Amino acid sequence: MNEADFLALLRPLATHPAARGFADDAAVLGDLVFTHDMLVEGVHYLSDDPPGEVAWKLLAVNLSDLAAKGATPVGVLMGYTLGVDTAWDKAFVTGLSCALEHFETALLGGDTVSNPAAPRVLSLTAIGRSSIAPSRSGAQAGDALYVTGTIGMAGLGLAELRESSAATGENVERYRRPTPRLSEGRALGPIVHAMMDVSDGLLIDAQRMAAASNLALEIDIDAVPIVGEWMAALTAGDDYELLFAAAPDAALPVNASRIGTFAWGTGLTLCDASGPVPLPNPLGWLHQAAAQ
Amino acid sequence: MNEADFLALLRPLATHPAARGFADDAAVLGDLVFTHDMLVEGVHYLSDDPPGEVAWKLLAVNLSDLAAKGATPVGVLMGYTLGVDTAWDKAFVTGLSCALEHFETALLGGDTVSNPAAPRVLSLTAIGRSSIAPSRSGAQAGDALYVTGTIGMAGLGLAELRESSAATGENVERYRRPTPRLSEGRALGPIVHAMMDVSDGLLIDAQRMAAASNLALEIDIDAVPIVGEWMAALTAGDDYELLFAAAPDAALPVNASRIGTFAWGTGLTLCDASGPVPLPNPLGWLHQAAAQ
Repeated sequence: MNEADFLALLRPLATHPAARGFADDAAVLGDLVFTHDMLVEGVHYLSDDPPGEVAWKLLAVNLSDLAAKGATPVGVLMGYTLGVDTAWDKAFVTGLSCALEHFETALLGGDTVSNPAAPRVLSLTAIGRSSIAPSRSGAQAGDALYVTGTIGMAGLGLAELRESSAATGENVERYRRPTPRLSEGRALGPIVHAMMDVSDGLLIDAQRMAAASNLALEIDIDAVPIVGEWMAALTAGDDYELLFAAAPDAALPVNASRIGTFAWGTGLTLCDASGPVPLPNPLGWLHQAAAQ
Repeated sequence: MNEADFLALLRPLATHPAARGFADDAAVLGDLVFTHDMLVEGVHYLSDDPPGEVAWKLLAVNLSDLAAKGATPVGVLMGYTLGVDTAWDKAFVTGLSCALEHFETALLGGDTVSNPAAPRVLSLTAIGRSSIAPSRSGAQAGDALYVTGTIGMAGLGLAELRESSAATGENVERYRRPTPRLSEGRALGPIVHAMMDVSDGLLIDAQRMAAASNLALEIDIDAVPIVGEWMAALTAGDDYELLFAAAPDAALPVNASRIGTFAWGTGLTLCDASGPVPLPNPLGWLHQAAAQ
């Protein structure tokens, strides 16, 4: 059973409106927003990634989901599997402390368990506050699709680290220390029709927004602000930019690239200046396909 | 580094009042209560425990923390490591569905990750609503210590399962399907000075309440409603009864046994009809010692 199959099994359990049918990045209860993401050693980060960077990433990937809901972080709860490497654990806490301070949020609680023989499994629930919390399902026919920042650097960084764990540079930095677009998310909240973060890859995440909105989507790949080779960039995860649908004439409060158009229908299509382009397979980073 | 050492490292990160200095079962933000507990295969449950019972336990141990804050469950977010055993995953979801229905709560979201080679690590954040949310640090000198129900059955059940994984009966049932004392917690909320659940063992949890309240505590072990041998019962975990401090003349809205008295000073002491009794070592189930 893959993660999509498991999510399908779980969907009948989303009986509360706060769950948004598991079709969103976060649960929304009144003006509070909740998200819960895990990192598994060797799956979501490399075993020799510095522990302080792992702590940053654990926090950042969750705050990115809050950003996509236009939320301000309130606090987090963490689940931590304590290993046998005390230096690692200490460096992790130091990194977590810096990251919490950087994002002006706090650790509210959590749980520590023993799991010495196995890969580390880190879980985090982030709580945020948002008066708007746009869903990923609200895109309208005729809306334009936009993305903030650039796409592909984190994927390049991961590839460089797989070549050499001593790799450094801005791509590696982007992979290890993603920046959740919190201020951009808050600014965009009032004007977007749908918003989500790009965590598993631009194409797979855009496809999810179109499907959740019951619309077709065409992406002009020439318009995507890509770093590196286009197919790798469009299908790599971990960029944590914001992807949003808004009216094509909306005045955007942040810098973003217009990369596609929603229309009545279903399905994702790609084009460039010369015409239609076949979809890559897979569309994105399926290891990270998440319940939310 | 053990879990207490790790918690000490984390404590400076509890900069938000909602964290209650990590000295409580849950974080409290307005009228919302949050708790996050993990279960690790082979640590918190046995590998051959039925998957539906594991789902029940994952939910129940978190709802027990809500019960201790007098809260009504609102919903939960779950983190799940998907393995290679599809039948197990399906049975888990069926059990989770039953348990959510039983406790009248809903899955709001979460995350699914791949971790095929390793023990399962399950995480859950439970969200509840409580207008009172008693802490574990509010006991007053002269208060009596009370416990609901009986203590020791879950420990006996675990011992029976370790003898034979085919063991059945009420002790095994108690170990696998604990009952969070939600209605008792709500009834007790307005009259207690401090409350927590008994998850790691009566003595270690009572010691934590006394320490958090800056008081000494004497427990009359003859008064504890024990099932089985006294030392095993007092130090075994997983009973999930409520332990609370209240005025000795308070009218209790639920059945509970008066088992001790708080006084100025520090430390836990035990006595029986013949006088002082030495403390057992360890006092409780340290594998489960949790950040909350």
